[in-house]
Amino acid sequence: MLSRRQRDRLAVVLVETRNPLNLGAAARAMSNFGFDRLRVVEPYEVAFREARSAMGARELLEAAEECPSIAAAVSDCRLVVGTSAIGKRQLQHPVRTLAHGAQLIRHHLRFDRVAILFGSEKTGLSNQDLSHCHWLLHIPTRAQHLSMNLAQAVAVTLYEMVRAAQPERSNIRVEVATAGDLERLTQLLLACATESGFVSTGSARSREQKLRRLVHRINLPPADVQMLLGLARQILWSLRPGS
Amino acid sequence: MLSRRQRDRLAVVLVETRNPLNLGAAARAMSNFGFDRLRVVEPYEVAFREARSAMGARELLEAAEECPSIAAAVSDCRLVVGTSAIGKRQLQHPVRTLAHGAQLIRHHLRFDRVAILFGSEKTGLSNQDLSHCHWLLHIPTRAQHLSMNLAQAVAVTLYEMVRAAQPERSNIRVEVATAGDLERLTQLLLACATESGFVSTGSARSREQKLRRLVHRINLPPADVQMLLGLARQILWSLRPGS
Repeated sequence: MLSRRQRDRLAVVLVETRNPLNLGAAARAMSNFGFDRLRVVEPYEVAFREARSAMGARELLEAAEECPSIAAAVSDCRLVVGTSAIGKRQLQHPVRTLAHGAQLIRHHLRFDRVAILFGSEKTGLSNQDLSHCHWLLHIPTRAQHLSMNLAQAVAVTLYEMVRAAQPERSNIRVEVATAGDLERLTQLLLACATESGFVSTGSARSREQKLRRLVHRINLPPADVQMLLGLARQILWSLRPGS
Repeated sequence: MLSRRQRDRLAVVLVETRNPLNLGAAARAMSNFGFDRLRVVEPYEVAFREARSAMGARELLEAAEECPSIAAAVSDCRLVVGTSAIGKRQLQHPVRTLAHGAQLIRHHLRFDRVAILFGSEKTGLSNQDLSHCHWLLHIPTRAQHLSMNLAQAVAVTLYEMVRAAQPERSNIRVEVATAGDLERLTQLLLACATESGFVSTGSARSREQKLRRLVHRINLPPADVQMLLGLARQILWSLRPGS
């Protein structure tokens, strides 16, 4: 897990973003995964202004730092990582897949500030932009359709940053019914099966076994057992002649 | 890595999507990560029409299947997984983090069709929607800002699906029933419950949800489903007056 302080050391740097929806959506993704430090380099001004209403990320956008250049945006960082779709362009940098790269970034965040750069929607990061980077992150998209939506790339990258060592969140309290209740349910189901003619005398024993196995195997919580007992009782009551 | 055939077994199901940009962006994310099978349940019609121009995903959107209901959208799937921000709502399902859940889904994809459901932008999946699911996927967003943008949630989920060649655990195929058979069983049980007087008109909807949840949760093998279908049919036949 990344501590609050470690998250604070990561700056998301959006370079020349054009679309306010993308700016807002990127900010929302940052907020979802608990990263606050947004820096924008030469955003299209209208985009930056309009984005400030993004759902759930207003504060983050208001605190965003506007920087005149990439050099200014990354000057306090000891690791600068670029993101790239890696098309036909010849890259001069080491490239790491997101899973591996995020691991290295997490390591750095224990001591140093790190910047991750995302380029504009249309052209991504230029060679000039990339020259500020130590290495490049690559999200494993397929060769026929490499280029991701900007905010989705931010979301996927930050998800990977917090992904590791998540405590398994689970609402399962393994509460199961007593064997007594399960046996009652088995007997009631068998009675329904017999009364309805589903089970004949000859097949009763094997059906009973099948039903009991089934009832035991399915790990019913007590509330479900109570509902099924109620249902089976009611059905049986309706099936019995003269009831 | 997932093979082409395994990817084809995964259906992304968007339920009541309202915003064409989100539909288009979700389709683009699918294309980025190599998944083609999009099913839409009751999309806002204008949204669906307008989305067909999404960058790089036109073919995928044109091939999308429009389904009248969730039941129809998932009927050929043997595993149905819901996505949820998991807020204050009390959930009745097992919840798995994305990293763990994706591993289970990959395992299923070696043999079976799987559906992953995403709810509308505003309300997510309702309890009625969730009653079609075997379990829920949770993307580990922070408690103060749980709810993700729809297309970003699709992107992050599919990224995790293809993320790494996790060593698969076992070759044993656990055979489970199709969602279509489970829905038939749910409807038959509900009919029995109604005919026997267990369910009154007023409580029908909540009982239906409870029954469907129960039927999905218990991972019935096909043979057990066939037995229960036979039993329920016979009971219903006996219960109906004049039968």
